[in-house]
Amino acid sequence: MSEFSNVTVVKEANIFFDGGVTSRTIIFSSGSKKTLGIMMPGEYVFNTAGAELMEILSGDLEVQIAGIDSWKPVKGGESFEVPASSSFRMKVKTVTDYCCSFLA
Amino acid sequence: MSEFSNVTVVKEANIFFDGGVTSRTIIFSSGSKKTLGIMMPGEYVFNTAGAELMEILSGDLEVQIAGIDSWKPVKGGESFEVPASSSFRMKVKTVTDYCCSFLA
Repeated sequence: MSEFSNVTVVKEANIFFDGGVTSRTIIFSSGSKKTLGIMMPGEYVFNTAGAELMEILSGDLEVQIAGIDSWKPVKGGESFEVPASSSFRMKVKTVTDYCCSFLA
Repeated sequence: MSEFSNVTVVKEANIFFDGGVTSRTIIFSSGSKKTLGIMMPGEYVFNTAGAELMEILSGDLEVQIAGIDSWKPVKGGESFEVPASSSFRMKVKTVTDYCCSFLA
């Protein structure tokens, strides 16, 4: 089990798509943020402000990043990056645990 | 938004009932733990080792604690306690955000 220590956790969850995607915001001493979240099976589209790194802790999905036709399979232990001011579509196949880092 | 500061967060989620209930473990400097979790609509039964305080941050459910016939409605802003070495059954009506404190 890996951990983030000396952090602040926002108590209330971020809830999207009627609970299909939920997450907790983690704030580091540097001021940077990550979210630790769960995606239930389903299809979701998210927009990005800054670039994001999506680290899949466990689960199984396919992702299509805006401007790219192909779908990329991603599973636990793998990750994908989404540019700033972009969007990404996901087909989540199994309950998926993720960590999202906001890169800029 | 309320926060827990100077805590450790276990990165990997706790996943129960095929994602119906998921949570993150928060460890305080005192060594005590809480979990911040999400329950999707559905029926769940949990056992307790030590006593637990379930604080409902948002959502709507009914709870029946072992040994008590009646079902107690609980909604966001309310909480319920479960004794040690007991169990509780929940009928979750809407996506529910909770904080579980382990009392002993």
